[in-house]
Amino acid sequence: MTGSLIIAGLGPGDDRLVTPEVVSALAEATDVVGYIPYVARVAPRAGLTLHPSDNRVELDRARAALAMAADGRRVVVVSSGDPGVFAMASAVFEALEGREDWQALDIRVLPGITAMLAAAAAVGAPLGHDFCCINLSDNLKPWEMIETRLRLAARADLAMAFYNPRSASRPEGFARTLEVLREECGSDRLVTFARAVSTPDERIATITLGEATPEMADMRTVVIVGNSATRRVGRWVYSPRRAG
Amino acid sequence: MTGSLIIAGLGPGDDRLVTPEVVSALAEATDVVGYIPYVARVAPRAGLTLHPSDNRVELDRARAALAMAADGRRVVVVSSGDPGVFAMASAVFEALEGREDWQALDIRVLPGITAMLAAAAAVGAPLGHDFCCINLSDNLKPWEMIETRLRLAARADLAMAFYNPRSASRPEGFARTLEVLREECGSDRLVTFARAVSTPDERIATITLGEATPEMADMRTVVIVGNSATRRVGRWVYSPRRAG
Repeated sequence: MTGSLIIAGLGPGDDRLVTPEVVSALAEATDVVGYIPYVARVAPRAGLTLHPSDNRVELDRARAALAMAADGRRVVVVSSGDPGVFAMASAVFEALEGREDWQALDIRVLPGITAMLAAAAAVGAPLGHDFCCINLSDNLKPWEMIETRLRLAARADLAMAFYNPRSASRPEGFARTLEVLREECGSDRLVTFARAVSTPDERIATITLGEATPEMADMRTVVIVGNSATRRVGRWVYSPRRAG
Repeated sequence: MTGSLIIAGLGPGDDRLVTPEVVSALAEATDVVGYIPYVARVAPRAGLTLHPSDNRVELDRARAALAMAADGRRVVVVSSGDPGVFAMASAVFEALEGREDWQALDIRVLPGITAMLAAAAAVGAPLGHDFCCINLSDNLKPWEMIETRLRLAARADLAMAFYNPRSASRPEGFARTLEVLREECGSDRLVTFARAVSTPDERIATITLGEATPEMADMRTVVIVGNSATRRVGRWVYSPRRAG
């Protein structure tokens, strides 16, 4: 039996946002590996072993998945959203460093609907012009780097999508983010808080930076800040295609 | 009969990357509107009228779609990829400006797999760290703005995904883009050219900026430039999660 490793994106939550390609991969898997709440989205069945694991053990999880694939299993590593956007794909490739045996495996990444696309669609088209996508967690990079990126992105007049804006263990980062953005973009800039998009817990609101407060975000929230031209029309928010 | 307008993303090309949500919307549509090659991806059936139109008429197309929805039709406007990323969603919201009658319509955006996610998945995880997404077409913004964004994004050490890098009518912009990037990022930076991802015409290559030439891109190509840490492992390319 030849093993394989697929890194698959489950989309933001709603089953109707899971691609048929990912559904097929899950149907053929012998083992599904991932963070507890994502593995919980995969229906149990005979012949399938589920391997849920806790947060912040991404590299260990990747190595365990690769070891199973090397052992001949058909392994699917699941991420929420898209696996290549602040999710498991990078961890798997990092785990391949120095392991030529694992590099020879059949490995594929299957894209998914990442949270910012679902959030943008839910409110209109705030990412309809040039934008950036920044992970606000400072677990894996210094805060100074985040702040520099925020300021340069604002000066480039890019719309911005933020992942992992605020955790209980480091609530101060997002408060500082809002201060930096108010300095760079002013208080009237539109900002959308989109929590748990496409799930029963969905909660979405668009306000101004002047009205935004840190506790409006948690780790299940994607935050989208418009560019200088982002505007409301009717009950929607969009960034015009034309600029300058 | 109550009309509706759905703006749906068909993904990059492969039917297995179309979400079930979009498949359902198309199954219930009375009218499908869009650029000729995208409408061609929708199977004809009784009760469905296809309205293909040429490129660069996005606002006219949006108004025609809204007028049909106002007339009671169930209209789906199709885009390739995700409709909110350099596609039809912004044009539809722009067409709503000043039209309170149209703003009262049932309008929804259904997200899709945008080309940069499919391209990134095909080569590994080059967008696994902070990144930006820039439309290189200067039809709707001045070239100076594009160049400023390229330089600021490079200084922020963001990976970059470029859409519409090069058309026959303005081939010089992408040549200039490569020059600017070599100045800012050096010649060793990894760059992926991903043409027509997930279609029979797919052609994907990762090289260095020093090796890149303008004619490697056309309008069906997404170009992904890594950040300073983006590296190869085995036959893949990825951006490590950790930085700084």
